[in-house]
Amino acid sequence: MPKHVDHPARREELAQALWRLVMREGMAGASIRRVAAEAGWSSGSVRHYFTTHSELLVFAMDRVTQRVADRIAALPQQADPRMRARLVLAEILPLDDVRRAETQVWLAFTMQAVNDPALRPLLDAAHALLRDLCRQAAEVYTSEDVPVEAERLHALLDGLALHAVLEPETTTPERIWAVLNAHLESMRGRPAPGPDT
Amino acid sequence: MPKHVDHPARREELAQALWRLVMREGMAGASIRRVAAEAGWSSGSVRHYFTTHSELLVFAMDRVTQRVADRIAALPQQADPRMRARLVLAEILPLDDVRRAETQVWLAFTMQAVNDPALRPLLDAAHALLRDLCRQAAEVYTSEDVPVEAERLHALLDGLALHAVLEPETTTPERIWAVLNAHLESMRGRPAPGPDT
Repeated sequence: MPKHVDHPARREELAQALWRLVMREGMAGASIRRVAAEAGWSSGSVRHYFTTHSELLVFAMDRVTQRVADRIAALPQQADPRMRARLVLAEILPLDDVRRAETQVWLAFTMQAVNDPALRPLLDAAHALLRDLCRQAAEVYTSEDVPVEAERLHALLDGLALHAVLEPETTTPERIWAVLNAHLESMRGRPAPGPDT
Repeated sequence: MPKHVDHPARREELAQALWRLVMREGMAGASIRRVAAEAGWSSGSVRHYFTTHSELLVFAMDRVTQRVADRIAALPQQADPRMRARLVLAEILPLDDVRRAETQVWLAFTMQAVNDPALRPLLDAAHALLRDLCRQAAEVYTSEDVPVEAERLHALLDGLALHAVLEPETTTPERIWAVLNAHLESMRGRPAPGPDT
């Protein structure tokens, strides 16, 4: 591995180039060579930041995780915990072009991580983050078996994300909203806590 | 591509060797060379049946689709259409070692198909088969918006399958049954049709 010259501004510039490429062409087009061309760098310079396609995927997935966490932290306060849970879940579903690109990165990363032990820690971290969000949502939406309801919601979200990448024509934002709303409705087993009840 | 000498018995022998390998080591270990060694054939002989890893995945996925269809066709008659729907869905979920291996093949194939247009027709066919099964289940389980309920069930099944491969320790058969049962229960919106009502 070459000597690591990791100026934050340079790293940010590269992340922006990668992101433009993924937004325009999906994750399939994002090779080290293409990212270098998009940034106007040499491939050699890019290789100070990642030397393999796996490292590129880690770089991309790190950014996606950070972006999602930042958006969730910036959500306006909600008096109703169920409304808050719904808005949090919406931030991780492919409901617009930005979140669709993030979902493509997640899927490409997940695919690679299944067979690449070096990627497991980041995969497990992303998986655990989502599992926590689903557990929090299950806790405010239902008094039924929370672990089962959390897994049921988590599996639904991951399946929807997979379908959005495989079949974008039918898995539209309107369909995703309808499925999420029907699912949250199906979880209700007691009056909502909070000021609305 | 070499001349295709496709005797059914030879093909079956190869399919059995591939299956033993997948059952023992998962889909990650299934290369052309390994399949040849398992069958006791030369790699050259195997290449009469598939010449690339993509063609190996097509071969494996074809068998999985056929196995699942055969099992569903062999299910005993059920008077209750909801019970039948539940048993059909159980045939595609990773509830034992055989179905877990099938799920590994499905995921490896799906991953490859995202970026390989040659694999799209078989992916679309497998996806459409599952969508039909989910639609039939939605029709007997609910009077709510059937397309939304069918997609909600389909996304749940694909998410569970993904979790079973990524996290086999927590996505146990018991957990999968509990999630499927809770989900089908959540879809009930009217009395079941059939002799039980």
